[in-house]
Amino acid sequence: MRPTREPTTSICYSTKEKIVVRGCDLVEELIGHLTFTEMIILHLTGKRPSKMQTTLLDAVLVTTIEHGLTPSAITARLTFHATPEALQGAVAAGLLGAGSVYLGTMEGCSALLEELVGAPEGIQHRARTIVERFRSQNRAIPGFGHPLHKPADPRTQKLIELATREGVKGDYISALSELGAAADLAYGRHLLINASGAIAAILLEVGLPHNIARGITVISRAAGLVGHILEEVEKPAGRFMWEAVEKAIPYAETGSIEGGL
Amino acid sequence: MRPTREPTTSICYSTKEKIVVRGCDLVEELIGHLTFTEMIILHLTGKRPSKMQTTLLDAVLVTTIEHGLTPSAITARLTFHATPEALQGAVAAGLLGAGSVYLGTMEGCSALLEELVGAPEGIQHRARTIVERFRSQNRAIPGFGHPLHKPADPRTQKLIELATREGVKGDYISALSELGAAADLAYGRHLLINASGAIAAILLEVGLPHNIARGITVISRAAGLVGHILEEVEKPAGRFMWEAVEKAIPYAETGSIEGGL
Amino acid sequence: MRPTREPTTSICYSTKEKIVVRGCDLVEELIGHLTFTEMIILHLTGKRPSKMQTTLLDAVLVTTIEHGLTPSAITARLTFHATPEALQGAVAAGLLGAGSVYLGTMEGCSALLEELVGAPEGIQHRARTIVERFRSQNRAIPGFGHPLHKPADPRTQKLIELATREGVKGDYISALSELGAAADLAYGRHLLINASGAIAAILLEVGLPHNIARGITVISRAAGLVGHILEEVEKPAGRFMWEAVEKAIPYAETGSIEGGL
Amino acid sequence: MRPTREPTTSICYSTKEKIVVRGCDLVEELIGHLTFTEMIILHLTGKRPSKMQTTLLDAVLVTTIEHGLTPSAITARLTFHATPEALQGAVAAGLLGAGSVYLGTMEGCSALLEELVGAPEGIQHRARTIVERFRSQNRAIPGFGHPLHKPADPRTQKLIELATREGVKGDYISALSELGAAADLAYGRHLLINASGAIAAILLEVGLPHNIARGITVISRAAGLVGHILEEVEKPAGRFMWEAVEKAIPYAETGSIEGGL
Repeated sequence: MRPTREPTTSICYSTKEKIVVRGCDLVEELIGHLTFTEMIILHLTGKRPSKMQTTLLDAVLVTTIEHGLTPSAITARLTFHATPEALQGAVAAGLLGAGSVYLGTMEGCSALLEELVGAPEGIQHRARTIVERFRSQNRAIPGFGHPLHKPADPRTQKLIELATREGVKGDYISALSELGAAADLAYGRHLLINASGAIAAILLEVGLPHNIARGITVISRAAGLVGHILEEVEKPAGRFMWEAVEKAIPYAETGSIEGGL
Repeated sequence: MRPTREPTTSICYSTKEKIVVRGCDLVEELIGHLTFTEMIILHLTGKRPSKMQTTLLDAVLVTTIEHGLTPSAITARLTFHATPEALQGAVAAGLLGAGSVYLGTMEGCSALLEELVGAPEGIQHRARTIVERFRSQNRAIPGFGHPLHKPADPRTQKLIELATREGVKGDYISALSELGAAADLAYGRHLLINASGAIAAILLEVGLPHNIARGITVISRAAGLVGHILEEVEKPAGRFMWEAVEKAIPYAETGSIEGGL
Repeated sequence: MRPTREPTTSICYSTKEKIVVRGCDLVEELIGHLTFTEMIILHLTGKRPSKMQTTLLDAVLVTTIEHGLTPSAITARLTFHATPEALQGAVAAGLLGAGSVYLGTMEGCSALLEELVGAPEGIQHRARTIVERFRSQNRAIPGFGHPLHKPADPRTQKLIELATREGVKGDYISALSELGAAADLAYGRHLLINASGAIAAILLEVGLPHNIARGITVISRAAGLVGHILEEVEKPAGRFMWEAVEKAIPYAETGSIEGGL
Repeated sequence: MRPTREPTTSICYSTKEKIVVRGCDLVEELIGHLTFTEMIILHLTGKRPSKMQTTLLDAVLVTTIEHGLTPSAITARLTFHATPEALQGAVAAGLLGAGSVYLGTMEGCSALLEELVGAPEGIQHRARTIVERFRSQNRAIPGFGHPLHKPADPRTQKLIELATREGVKGDYISALSELGAAADLAYGRHLLINASGAIAAILLEVGLPHNIARGITVISRAAGLVGHILEEVEKPAGRFMWEAVEKAIPYAETGSIEGGL
């Protein structure tokens, strides 16, 4: 990641007659030829997508587009309620909630899977070490557990099945499975693999660039937030959300305000 | 758009066993069954997409994902250079540039096309009135003209051809064409229809909800910005962009600073 | 606003030994010599502030820093709940709600006051014309009315008193008063001048650059949002806000999802 | 930081007649009585500020309001160039660059100072340990060094002098000094204390809540960005910034795009 002496961009250039994206003429070779998902893969990797890559990225994007009235969706709708003239600001506000708490587990799991697959002492051995590390620090292992979906996250099995059917190499999925087995043994109970864990494994199988997990979710969530804003246009709920919060969080005096220092 | 007494959401709910989006079981009916573009249409409209809708929305999303080092892309890369730990913030910053100057023409053209198609006095007559309105105020007609691509925007013909091939009804495309003819006559020279104009017409043909144009571009641009951030990771250019700007905009003293009022 | 041929900046430059802001040595002349409010005036106007300007801008900033659990504050707290590692993202998300609905009235009122003061036919005559214009379009006059504070906005009188005490010229405050008189007459009942109206008048009296109203509120609100985020750190409420919204906006099936077009 | 059972807010409530912030009547007790900086301290701490606190926070806010055409300022101006109708979005975009690279050193230094002051083995001993820790990991010690200002950061001495003059207790400033001495000894050369280091120490001396450093800078930078946007209105430079970047970062083909996996 050292700074290049003379930085260049290899994504896009335009002339009077054409626009070239990743070496392809946008009009002649891309519009009408690639689906949006295929175009995303070409854009992110600089390579034409395989059918396997497209199928699995479609599955991941469909999985993550929507999860109901989450903090992101509420934020986007309240912001649109306040600034209906700037839809882009409402989407941006919603995306700013895509951070460590709700999507970090995907990134964290991704890093663990890479650590496992590259471990010289073997995956099983390293899986035990990782579980011990998290357990001794009393931290949740990223990619495991879910507050609502129990005893299994319904998305996990589906995604893994799809990946298997598409013939992925399987190293990262195996690593995820070994990590789960080590965790079950250490904790003496079954820890479910959640959708974040499955997605982390699949994006690595698909060969998308390292650390891309959060970016993929940002793309799909942008679409979901546009959908919420459309619903806000048709069935305005922002004002009610605001009132519900005001009612739920009452004012309470604290002590004296005298004396700073 | 009056506030509903008891607002509800019809987008998504979850139980322990399942996640339901737009009435469909996410795991059983959507993941592995729909492409991302099909899922976007289902999310935005609440209806299963037709092949025509999917093909044309794919074309629009592919068209708008990337335009090189635009203000949005520069903004996202500079923000990522400064806060590499918060990719979502860099994408959000880039999206905030999706406003009136570079995407407003799409929305403006969309409004004109709806006005034309609904005009009781006929499209040709209203087209002349609209052109006269813009001309007398010395304003550019949204959807026409381009600073770089001349004498034709290469994306326009391609998008219109695709729409025709997919068998759209064609009212909005005709209206766009009539508007262009009226403009050519009034100005005494040919005004090219740009990509924004073509996209405005096609999104209306596809039956996407009113005023969605900016939202569609926000989705595709989110993907393009993730691609720029990945390039920034691999070939850091943020620092060079900064230095280039500093060099281009020198400091210049202005007059006395004395006396406010 | 025509593009300058060779743009320059007159705000700040740095050398090894010093940082110069608006022609003043930051270390020698500004730190320890100016309050933050005085520095803001110097930054925005390029001129050293008068005591009157500082007193009134302090009053405006104090007035607008906080209004309870508004959409902006809720948004900032939900975003911080989701991304505690990126405080700047939570503040940014909250600021994105500073748009047309809750702050546009200030800008709108500011434009009316400038129109009034510059009216060749006299303020009273133009005030009647303006009121008629809004009344005939069934639109609220910006700067008047308040959903909660009745029959008077407590902030208005205080701000006007302060401005008078500080000896402002008073043209814009008079214009605001004439506008209110014309409105009362036309509607046959008293329309209260709200805080936005008073602030619009005062910022014009202070001689701050045109169209700055929204910017001033963005500054004070940034401070208020940081305060809300601190409370979120100490007394986390984000999760409860989320749950309150989910409970308030239930899921409701809509019709069939079959058939796009 | 455990979730409270029944969360409340202690910042603000409103009735028909009044607005109460931190237990004070906004109109009767705050507007016209407190400067903006005093109000910020009351808002953030819930306590009335002392003169020492106000003087030093003013100094910190004046110090950090402006640093020229930084990534934040460029981002705000490019975003405003693209969306002049949404000033709040341009400020938000600029604030999103207030992350780990340019402001993290302040937070990092703050944590080190707290570690030092609380060290049971004494400050000198812990300072050596800390320096060794950073040195062995080949990481820069936060609060030390500057790419431009050498051999001293002109802001540092000024801020420390002011704090001393205001009679702060001085524990954190001493700790910063001890850390510098330990670093000089270990590296065999003088490491300058930069403005971030000085500000970290002063905010701790002032008794502002833990971890507030980034929030303070976000407040002052919001003001600086509004100033840059005003200059963009008066002397538009956004388009030139864009062109300068395009020229500086040329397009360069990479290898074949064939074959995804």
